[in-house]
Amino acid sequence: MSQVDKQLDTLKSEIEQEIPNDITVTDVKYEGPELVVYTRDPKQFAGDGDLIRRLASKLRKRITVRPDPSALSPPARAEEEVREVIPDDAGVTDLDFHEDTGEVVIEAEKPGMVIGRRGSTLREITQEVGWTPEVVRTPPIESSTVSNVRGFLKNEREERRDILERVGRQIHREEMSDDEWVRITTLGCCREVGRAAFIVSTPETRILVDCGDKPGAEGEVPYLQIPEALGAGAATLDAVVLTHAHLDHSALIPLLFKYGYDGPIYTTEPTRDLMGLLTLDYLDVAAKEGRTPPYESAQVRDAIKHTIPLEYGDVTDVAPDVKLTFHNAGHILGSAVTHFHIGDGLYNIAFSGDIHYEDTRLFNGAVNDFPRVETLVLESTYGGRDDYQTDQADSEEALKEVINETYEQDGKVVIPAFAVGRSQEIMLVLEEAMREGEIPTMPVHLDGMIWEATAIHTTYPEYLRDDLRDRIFHDDENPFLADQFNHIDAGEDERQEVADGDECIVISTSGMIEGGPIMSWLRHIGPDPDSNLVFVGYQAQGTLGRRIQNGWDEIPVDGWGGGSRGDTLTLQMGTEVVDGFSGHADRQGLENFVKTMNPRPEKVLCVHGDERSVQDLSSALYHDYNMRTFAPKNLETFRFK
Amino acid sequence: MSQVDKQLDTLKSEIEQEIPNDITVTDVKYEGPELVVYTRDPKQFAGDGDLIRRLASKLRKRITVRPDPSALSPPARAEEEVREVIPDDAGVTDLDFHEDTGEVVIEAEKPGMVIGRRGSTLREITQEVGWTPEVVRTPPIESSTVSNVRGFLKNEREERRDILERVGRQIHREEMSDDEWVRITTLGCCREVGRAAFIVSTPETRILVDCGDKPGAEGEVPYLQIPEALGAGAATLDAVVLTHAHLDHSALIPLLFKYGYDGPIYTTEPTRDLMGLLTLDYLDVAAKEGRTPPYESAQVRDAIKHTIPLEYGDVTDVAPDVKLTFHNAGHILGSAVTHFHIGDGLYNIAFSGDIHYEDTRLFNGAVNDFPRVETLVLESTYGGRDDYQTDQADSEEALKEVINETYEQDGKVVIPAFAVGRSQEIMLVLEEAMREGEIPTMPVHLDGMIWEATAIHTTYPEYLRDDLRDRIFHDDENPFLADQFNHIDAGEDERQEVADGDECIVISTSGMIEGGPIMSWLRHIGPDPDSNLVFVGYQAQGTLGRRIQNGWDEIPVDGWGGGSRGDTLTLQMGTEVVDGFSGHADRQGLENFVKTMNPRPEKVLCVHGDERSVQDLSSALYHDYNMRTFAPKNLETFRFK
Ligand SMILES: [Zn+2]
Ligand SMILES: [Zn+2]
Ligand SMILES: [Zn+2]
Ligand SMILES: [Zn+2]
Ligand SMILES: [Zn+2]
Repeated sequence: MSQVDKQLDTLKSEIEQEIPNDITVTDVKYEGPELVVYTRDPKQFAGDGDLIRRLASKLRKRITVRPDPSALSPPARAEEEVREVIPDDAGVTDLDFHEDTGEVVIEAEKPGMVIGRRGSTLREITQEVGWTPEVVRTPPIESSTVSNVRGFLKNEREERRDILERVGRQIHREEMSDDEWVRITTLGCCREVGRAAFIVSTPETRILVDCGDKPGAEGEVPYLQIPEALGAGAATLDAVVLTHAHLDHSALIPLLFKYGYDGPIYTTEPTRDLMGLLTLDYLDVAAKEGRTPPYESAQVRDAIKHTIPLEYGDVTDVAPDVKLTFHNAGHILGSAVTHFHIGDGLYNIAFSGDIHYEDTRLFNGAVNDFPRVETLVLESTYGGRDDYQTDQADSEEALKEVINETYEQDGKVVIPAFAVGRSQEIMLVLEEAMREGEIPTMPVHLDGMIWEATAIHTTYPEYLRDDLRDRIFHDDENPFLADQFNHIDAGEDERQEVADGDECIVISTSGMIEGGPIMSWLRHIGPDPDSNLVFVGYQAQGTLGRRIQNGWDEIPVDGWGGGSRGDTLTLQMGTEVVDGFSGHADRQGLENFVKTMNPRPEKVLCVHGDERSVQDLSSALYHDYNMRTFAPKNLETFRFK
Repeated sequence: MSQVDKQLDTLKSEIEQEIPNDITVTDVKYEGPELVVYTRDPKQFAGDGDLIRRLASKLRKRITVRPDPSALSPPARAEEEVREVIPDDAGVTDLDFHEDTGEVVIEAEKPGMVIGRRGSTLREITQEVGWTPEVVRTPPIESSTVSNVRGFLKNEREERRDILERVGRQIHREEMSDDEWVRITTLGCCREVGRAAFIVSTPETRILVDCGDKPGAEGEVPYLQIPEALGAGAATLDAVVLTHAHLDHSALIPLLFKYGYDGPIYTTEPTRDLMGLLTLDYLDVAAKEGRTPPYESAQVRDAIKHTIPLEYGDVTDVAPDVKLTFHNAGHILGSAVTHFHIGDGLYNIAFSGDIHYEDTRLFNGAVNDFPRVETLVLESTYGGRDDYQTDQADSEEALKEVINETYEQDGKVVIPAFAVGRSQEIMLVLEEAMREGEIPTMPVHLDGMIWEATAIHTTYPEYLRDDLRDRIFHDDENPFLADQFNHIDAGEDERQEVADGDECIVISTSGMIEGGPIMSWLRHIGPDPDSNLVFVGYQAQGTLGRRIQNGWDEIPVDGWGGGSRGDTLTLQMGTEVVDGFSGHADRQGLENFVKTMNPRPEKVLCVHGDERSVQDLSSALYHDYNMRTFAPKNLETFRFK
């Protein structure tokens, strides 16, 4: 009998001692980080509202109870009974019964009403029919990403259960080493912005944190080939953790599966969906530009299949000696500050990922409160000594002014933006400004995945700022459903029509003008001196966006908007920079994040910023807060314990 | 045709263009770092004394010329002719003809006379018989190590040639990466003394420097199991470089072959022999103490078979992008400061290994003059702020005083010492003092490999200090042959006899009283209050030597000198510390080494010292010489380019 099987046997006995005599436990299994308890008496289990919580706290495990197949009502009858228990207002749109696991997935417009006060409705369902309910939200705006991911996972349920069981046994394997050490290896994004990738390693465990590409520097990928990364085989990694879906963190996650990785990816649910959206687009863009993409869509599906979604605040065993917890990072939907608790109190590391410290219209500010943390790995995008951003209120005024001026001279406003995050923030600003009459109400055209990304935002309102979440719950107040928002979904013809038409605003990807429909908009509107190109986000070195910001006006547009190879265009439209909408904390925000952090970390590694930014931030934190600070290079390893 | 074969073809054409028309080249091969040129006309080749040097400098390769088998006189006739060419005074003791390679190995008491002025006699030999001569010294004191190693290598010539050819092709393989970086990973001996092991890595190449154990801390071995060491398989290492034979640098070199390593070990010839001696003893000691040794003698032979000996100053290609050069380190016989020239001028690293900066009786001081060096990895054994040693002249006075006092009270002097280095230094002091009448002439008993180590020293006088070398060339002046030196070669009976006898001096291993015959001497002489135990070397933390220095007098002697398990002994003999004989530079010596180093390195990693020593030295070098200094931990990786 393997050590894990012995462990499960012991757990079964402990559970049996804890539960009433009339409940039979038929099996106990690991599925990923969860302990799944199969019972012939799901109804009695559900009867004691507190039982599962008590078990979880006694065994120090996340526990899921599932009915033994013998205990299930047949789906047809169960469906009827389930629908009876759930209030009509919940807006159930789908019921999906999985006989293999005894789960019923309930998709509803108002998941809260399916759950009930403290889960009372869910327990009632189990008491009625024996099935274990799982609730997901019906997207208020139809999202092909969400429905594809859900459909795919439904088809792959069986293989997924195998993966989860394998991962579960791996997580709960016996510890082999007496040795104690904790290290971080930098594989990318040190003294640069892009290709985020780190290895956290202990004698037991190796975890990859992020695996992104570098915008504006094709070919500069994380150093995955070195021995301490995948050199000894991708299968030697225990886990992959993804802080958020931006491509500089996620683009090469699917590549790991091509390299033979077969383990879990821990991230939030919205990040999983956004990663699917953005990496598939990344493949499309590569194909359009005639590059061979490093992997195919099959690997994106692999990544999704291997994802174990976690919620903010869940403390999760991901290895015998590592517990992982995500916290809101305030940067984009689902973005997470990632906390590792290593050993039994041995060491704690927090990766900021990308953060925004202040609240924005979309998100609450980043969490910086932890039980313990000795080392912080801190993004430094705006860590330079002069990287202070305008207050968002002032930025919004400036944006409205540019829009009003452009409108008055009959021009159009073109805003290049990342599909995810800044686009939705700008949408919220524009919707309010139009509603309040501060700018004229005119069409806002959303091009290149922005619509789809917005739909995903509305699917996961729990990840948005409280008041915004509440508005989305009411269709008539959902700002993203405002009439003036138009989805460009008819290609070049629609763009031409818009370009030939009246005053309007265009928000289009890519955010750094590296391809995507923004190229087409520049071709159509670029020659119009009455229009304005407005930058609202960071433009990385080497990107066309940065070059245009620096005054280039002779730009290549080949292949986009009907142009042909080698075409260039002289930009006649005005360019404006309205900063302050960044998804990143500015220098003050970074300092505040560290200064108010609880507890104060002993060491800070400043990463994800150009050479000057990481050096400035590192030396400021050292001098002002008396921490040991570092500005690592790529390919270094730091030992902490 | 492989890239290496193409390269060899090109080299053959270049050689043919350079040499006279009457010389035919039949083949060109790599053997390790050397280019071997086979010719049907070895006599003509030897006729032009400068030809090989010209070829070497044109092709920038080390070149060896060998006769094609068709060009050889038969061995019997050749032997006669060779003996005729070599002067009788050379004292030829063996001639060994290898028909497979056309080499004749000549063992002689005076190798210089076989070589002749600038190699004239060697060339004469080839011109006479066609064979390529190779000269080795007949040990002036018979050494079983030297004769075993030579005998073994003679038997393994064919396999060795296969190894060398494989290594040669590996060294001259095509470079694969456009990337440029240079890193050092610390696997041991950081903030500690012991288990020296580092990885030097580039995108092409990974080289292990040293692989030792940690005296006084069984089980604390280098972190070989991590991915960046052997985690991806020992075969992923390109080369192993050994700075010197002390076990804290060499003990686990043979283990690499158990782990599947099959590549070259670069070191000096005396280090190869001493490594053989010390690692075999290491296995013996483990067996005697009932421990399972980590490898067997077969792996020691593997290590010897895979050794490619280099001389001080030889610039040697060890990988497509790495050139290695050894320089005298002044520490023990064959010890080397190890210089890596990486890329074509990209970066230079020097590892000090263990060094002695000043001249000693045995050795010239360490070399610190290099064409270029950006990073120095510096030993720090005596790097602490108070680690100033007595001048050796004063130490010698002190030692003589202790000896005289002990003699006057009819006691004996027992000196624990490493077999290699300090023992010979002390022998030289005693021989001179007795010759000059400063101490009474009395027997000096050498126990536990010290005699054998001394024999190895006399085999390689080129590695000793100039004047000592010259004395060894004359048997009547060879200080190691003085009458008073007695080899303890009859075990316990002889020891008992010595203990029961008159005043004498005993020098015995192990140097830190961790087993070995010193345990027996303590048992025999320890209870005598008129005798003295004299420490002349560093006693590492955790060793019994350190404990006795700190005042412990209740010591375990089980199993040694007829004692049985669990026996302890109360030490009654006096203990004296006479420092200043260290093989290590003291704090002043380390500073001088760095201060006078040419060129001055930009970065210094302080290693091979306890926590306080590395911190003190690191901060002193930073403040006084304005270098970037580090006191690394084990398991870290530093990137330099
Ligand atoms: Zn981001
Ligand atoms: Zn980022
Ligand atoms: Zn649409
Ligand atoms: Zn040494
Ligand atoms: Zn050493």
